[in-house]
Amino acid sequence: MLQRDYPDLVCSIARSLEVVGERWTLLILRDAVMGIERFDDFQRSLGIASNVLTNRLKHLCDEGVLERVADPERPGRTKYVVTDKGGELGPALFMLLKWGDRHYPAEGGPPRLTLHTGCGGDVGVDLVCDRCGEQVGFGELDMPLGPGAPSVRSRA
Amino acid sequence: MLQRDYPDLVCSIARSLEVVGERWTLLILRDAVMGIERFDDFQRSLGIASNVLTNRLKHLCDEGVLERVADPERPGRTKYVVTDKGGELGPALFMLLKWGDRHYPAEGGPPRLTLHTGCGGDVGVDLVCDRCGEQVGFGELDMPLGPGAPSVRSRA
Repeated sequence: MLQRDYPDLVCSIARSLEVVGERWTLLILRDAVMGIERFDDFQRSLGIASNVLTNRLKHLCDEGVLERVADPERPGRTKYVVTDKGGELGPALFMLLKWGDRHYPAEGGPPRLTLHTGCGGDVGVDLVCDRCGEQVGFGELDMPLGPGAPSVRSRA
Repeated sequence: MLQRDYPDLVCSIARSLEVVGERWTLLILRDAVMGIERFDDFQRSLGIASNVLTNRLKHLCDEGVLERVADPERPGRTKYVVTDKGGELGPALFMLLKWGDRHYPAEGGPPRLTLHTGCGGDVGVDLVCDRCGEQVGFGELDMPLGPGAPSVRSRA
């Protein structure tokens, strides 16, 4: 993370960025929100150096965004789960995703879809479902891999 | 900005963070969205070194997030205005602001309020107005200084 802080900036955006204002940190959090829990899986997903990943995970745990818990499938090892506080960054990640989809589109389509749970319609940046027309809460979003995801494209 | 990119990460969040994934950049954008347009005013607001500010503004202009225009009040000088593309990052900034308000509250209250234009009710992270109960679009938000802003606190 950047070795710099903003003592004079009394602003909630600045305070948020103190915690998550670094690209790796937000990408780790994206993976965590998508269900990645293990150190090795974060490393594989991100291609990040293990010492950097260790630092970022520690920072996110210290801030209560992630929590270190015992991994029941691997005795003696830990995994990382998203806390309620961390999950509340989902809306900011969703907005960054929609902005990226729009202005930096991936070849083949969006790498992740944003679908209305149950209904299956696409949810726009205004959080309106294009199928049923309803306003969708952040808890009613499914985000499966889309046509632009590398693993999907290689199967095509 | 971090001298690093993520060639293998086909993800719209990663692509967004290529452009704005650095704290100063997001704070410059916050100021710009709030109406700051001049180099000197950005510098005063952020306390940022002028060479760093120059780099970040250039990056944001290169990406079409800000635009350099002639300043009609100061012949021969330029100012920076938010493009439509830049304005579309407003929702992500709003979500970071709400998260910061909740988890890192400022002394005295929120430094910025998020009010429903015309109605004046507070707009929550779910974009529902607490006064009229309506769903509020991002274009219907006023964000005046709140009780926790330093300039407001020093007047109290």
